[in-house]
Amino acid sequence: MTTPIYDKIAVLGCGLIGSSIVRAARAHGMAGQVAVFDLSAQVRERVAELGIADVVTADPVEAVKDADLVILAPPPGAIASAAEACAPGLKPGATLTDVGSVKGPVGQALAAAAPPGVFVVPGHPIAGTEFSGPDAGFPELFHGRWTILTPQQSDQPGYEEAVKRLAAFWEGIGARVELMDERHHDLVLAVTSHLPHLIAYNIVGTAADLEEVTQAEVMKYSAGGFRDFTRIAASDPVMWRDVFVLNKDAVLEILARFTEDLQALSRAIRWGEADKLEELFTRTREIRRGVIALGQESAEPNWGRDRDRT
Amino acid sequence: MTTPIYDKIAVLGCGLIGSSIVRAARAHGMAGQVAVFDLSAQVRERVAELGIADVVTADPVEAVKDADLVILAPPPGAIASAAEACAPGLKPGATLTDVGSVKGPVGQALAAAAPPGVFVVPGHPIAGTEFSGPDAGFPELFHGRWTILTPQQSDQPGYEEAVKRLAAFWEGIGARVELMDERHHDLVLAVTSHLPHLIAYNIVGTAADLEEVTQAEVMKYSAGGFRDFTRIAASDPVMWRDVFVLNKDAVLEILARFTEDLQALSRAIRWGEADKLEELFTRTREIRRGVIALGQESAEPNWGRDRDRT
Repeated sequence: MTTPIYDKIAVLGCGLIGSSIVRAARAHGMAGQVAVFDLSAQVRERVAELGIADVVTADPVEAVKDADLVILAPPPGAIASAAEACAPGLKPGATLTDVGSVKGPVGQALAAAAPPGVFVVPGHPIAGTEFSGPDAGFPELFHGRWTILTPQQSDQPGYEEAVKRLAAFWEGIGARVELMDERHHDLVLAVTSHLPHLIAYNIVGTAADLEEVTQAEVMKYSAGGFRDFTRIAASDPVMWRDVFVLNKDAVLEILARFTEDLQALSRAIRWGEADKLEELFTRTREIRRGVIALGQESAEPNWGRDRDRT
Repeated sequence: MTTPIYDKIAVLGCGLIGSSIVRAARAHGMAGQVAVFDLSAQVRERVAELGIADVVTADPVEAVKDADLVILAPPPGAIASAAEACAPGLKPGATLTDVGSVKGPVGQALAAAAPPGVFVVPGHPIAGTEFSGPDAGFPELFHGRWTILTPQQSDQPGYEEAVKRLAAFWEGIGARVELMDERHHDLVLAVTSHLPHLIAYNIVGTAADLEEVTQAEVMKYSAGGFRDFTRIAASDPVMWRDVFVLNKDAVLEILARFTEDLQALSRAIRWGEADKLEELFTRTREIRRGVIALGQESAEPNWGRDRDRT
């Protein structure tokens, strides 16, 4: 039998990510006991029906009582208030983490809310699907995916140990772990995740507003490339709203570069500069080969397509 | 046994699409005999090795001799010259078609090149992968995918029959067929395919140019959304160069709308207008549900992921 990394964990917010952590922790024997808090009565009821947690409660203080690890998994904009709400119940020596897609402001909020003696180690599992809610979670969601932890400047005794233990927990449920500075995290994710989502949302919106092309036509011929964008643009609206509000500076910086490049491309099309187009298109193909070489494709569950097939 | 729709077909240009048509026509018994022309000696040699055609030739006139159906499948920018090159060999009553992603200028070029008595019926199978060349083709590529035919104004006796016969050929190799005005085709595809490709090429280029984020990091954390863009941006550079040159007007029109919408989104982020963001993100999610309801996902082979896994 695997020895649990933590005797008790508490997950606050039980949507796609939270419920996947709960399921994965149990499946891999990484937690002795699992408590779940969620603001929504409907979600709590559903989690109880699913029978995936030992405790389901509407009281964040009760949820985190005696917990060795507290994972905040509400939408990013609600992480700060979740931290404040559970703070009175956190035991000394507990680790407080989260799963938000933005780390700078969230890290500050966690540090501000945590009582002395609690180890704050923000985190972000780079995993998800376009589905939401407790039913959308599954224990394999993190298999082979990266979880980034952004440890804070700390001279607390035991802090380094707490980071290692949290890393071991994520590895125990199948993830690969990387440590990163929180500001750098927010810039990297602005490129690899936030801008792609923004672009996908935008293009799907643009297509929906066309007068001469019907929505039915857009959907019917979406296999030409548009289809991938519709999947990304189906991601949780509340979570993504929060991401763009919280990571404003990095997103606007990357977006400005993207827009400049797009203007240059637009100009090349207008003036028929075929060579410039081919040069860019050849260069980007090489980058894809790098992605494949790094094993990013093979390491991932094929959730997107398979789920749509049902 | 299936009766072939055409006694002899000729495919000019034997890359991903051309070689898939050749393979599919044989697999489904849709052609009595298959002749292949390609400009490249290397491609001709490989097609001969693969043994997928009855005739492989460097002479377009020889390839189309006695052919009942001639399919032009070089990069879009080369379709006009391929039509001119084979025209002297086209027999009266033959159907001349193509597979280009842009139909307006290509349709005009085919009509100008075809001798009297030849039926010009431009076409476009909406199918592909990010791989190129004769080895990339496979007979199931068109299964459940749409092929759009753009018949021309014609008072030729037998023209309507020729269109029906070509539609039957595509259906015989697994495709679903739709007839469309060529100008409308170019607008619809600008939205559902050309702009998505342009955006994907652009974002991958922008990411590659960042100073603070390494290319290795971009690839490592690409599962956050970026990965889908890298696959699209790995599509054939020459083909896509030609698409943007040939469909300039429609692409620039759709791109201008996209850019306007993106500026509005950028402004909403800068001013923290969370409601506006959530409203758009909720609307685009509904569109995805429409795509799934139309069966666009389930009808498609899962080529992208599976091929990368090897």
